[in-house]
Amino acid sequence: MGGDFGPHCIVPASIACLAEYPSLHLVLVGQSPLLEELIARSPEVDRARLRVEHAGEVIGMDERPAQALRNKPDASMRVALELVRSGRAQACVSAGNTGALMALSRYVLKTLPGIDRPAMMAAVPTRTGYCQLLDLGANVDCSAEHLYQFAVMGSVAAEAMGIVRPRVALLNVGTEDIKGNQQVKLAANLLQQAAGLNYSGFVEGDGLYRGEADVVVCDGFVGNILLKSSEGLAQMISTRIEALFREGAAARLIGALAMPLLRRLRAELAPARHNGASFLGLQGIVVKSHGAAGQEGFKSAIRRALQEVEENLPQRLHGRLEDLLF
Amino acid sequence: MGGDFGPHCIVPASIACLAEYPSLHLVLVGQSPLLEELIARSPEVDRARLRVEHAGEVIGMDERPAQALRNKPDASMRVALELVRSGRAQACVSAGNTGALMALSRYVLKTLPGIDRPAMMAAVPTRTGYCQLLDLGANVDCSAEHLYQFAVMGSVAAEAMGIVRPRVALLNVGTEDIKGNQQVKLAANLLQQAAGLNYSGFVEGDGLYRGEADVVVCDGFVGNILLKSSEGLAQMISTRIEALFREGAAARLIGALAMPLLRRLRAELAPARHNGASFLGLQGIVVKSHGAAGQEGFKSAIRRALQEVEENLPQRLHGRLEDLLF
Repeated sequence: MGGDFGPHCIVPASIACLAEYPSLHLVLVGQSPLLEELIARSPEVDRARLRVEHAGEVIGMDERPAQALRNKPDASMRVALELVRSGRAQACVSAGNTGALMALSRYVLKTLPGIDRPAMMAAVPTRTGYCQLLDLGANVDCSAEHLYQFAVMGSVAAEAMGIVRPRVALLNVGTEDIKGNQQVKLAANLLQQAAGLNYSGFVEGDGLYRGEADVVVCDGFVGNILLKSSEGLAQMISTRIEALFREGAAARLIGALAMPLLRRLRAELAPARHNGASFLGLQGIVVKSHGAAGQEGFKSAIRRALQEVEENLPQRLHGRLEDLLF
Repeated sequence: MGGDFGPHCIVPASIACLAEYPSLHLVLVGQSPLLEELIARSPEVDRARLRVEHAGEVIGMDERPAQALRNKPDASMRVALELVRSGRAQACVSAGNTGALMALSRYVLKTLPGIDRPAMMAAVPTRTGYCQLLDLGANVDCSAEHLYQFAVMGSVAAEAMGIVRPRVALLNVGTEDIKGNQQVKLAANLLQQAAGLNYSGFVEGDGLYRGEADVVVCDGFVGNILLKSSEGLAQMISTRIEALFREGAAARLIGALAMPLLRRLRAELAPARHNGASFLGLQGIVVKSHGAAGQEGFKSAIRRALQEVEENLPQRLHGRLEDLLF
């Protein structure tokens, strides 16, 4: 029921994913009359693989997580997480209120042994491909131990995505040992001692985009600011390019020729391509779709959940955490 | 003597600035044989306004600030700051080691009464013009009081640059009251109570680029990451656009037409346009030029210093701080 476009985006995206992945089964959780109405618009859909589970309440996008946790036992988000907890679903994908999804996930699914706080991880495009960035806002105050746990989880998750010996780096204001705040310096000490992790040291903001690491670790405050400012800057550059090609007849003509190429670039860098942030460290799979994501974006979030199911990510994390956590 | 290109960039940039501003006098501080040799290449220069002050030592770009402070009394950076302290110069511009410049500035010039730590502020291009972002790395751990002091200094400095009632915002992971870490929430409380400041609340990373504030305040860790990741992303997009217009004959032809326009945009967004970070809160004017800045960039840093001299910024800050600080 969540996100800027709600079921009007999520239902068709889900139906498209069913067509793409023959082994996929989906349960749509929310207000069943509305969901059924939207499903009915696609008569070709295989209802044996698409079920609706009614949930009477909806958590607002601005609702406080604590309130949602206390007052809405029948919220669609919570019902969906209960399906995962009880084993009736293997993953939960939501475009709803991030804070509420995190709070409910922790409450319903619990964290893995040794993990204090789940982290939110998503892919960021770089010069050489992608890097996985975490945390993205779930934890605004982090100790060195939290950063260490994020590094371990990020590394294992990147391996599950097919990256061999992922280079794990700590985001910092410089690459020399003396740089950084207390938490980052202490986390670096912990990571240097960790066997079985390919720790590559500090990475700066520009190094991240140069592709210097496969997994970049920071606290949720920094990660959120980095991600959102990058979105804002990319959007600004894209808007300025369009404006540039509207200034005068010659520019418009050149623009008509150049825009298809530039649109291809925009599509490559578009958030929809890599939409879907994993909540790592829970006893179950939860993927958060960007609230502003459209159908393509939501499909990408479902795909990310599917990949984590196939790799059995929580189990894999559990196994590695026992070796890697102190 | 500092920066990636040293005097080979700084000397010609200085000479160009002298031609541009007839009232400007410059003192070049560093190894005088080298400086004189570089000046001699421009026989037209008005030597009545360009003096060389010899300094025998140079602080390396990777040298530890504490070491530089202790062991190099005759470093060019330190001699330049002494000129400001003694009133023989009105501002110091350096492209050298940022940490050493900050440490030496505090040691030689001292902070203004009521200011615990100087902050580093620079202009960031937005959709609607520019915003001034601080702190940019001088202070990686900040209390709420520090953030409050940065907000006050940023506001006064923006006014001095001609912005009427600058909108001052705190960088945060959300715009609701409950969002953020402890320091940011407490700083918001302080700012809400401050009369004489146009405090506009929280701004997110994307809001900054949408131009939602004139002055954006954060701790130095976050500011540094935001600035460097933005540089890295802009660079990546620019490189990808160029690559796009090299793929095949048709693209190359379109590129030949489109690149002049795109280069104009790149120049508009280029760091050189707004190079020069002000050290605010000192009893004197210090402007840091980006180490990688070329001649245009260094000229922009000199201009920034000139503007602060004309506005008598430290005096102005001193006057307003007495009203605004608790």
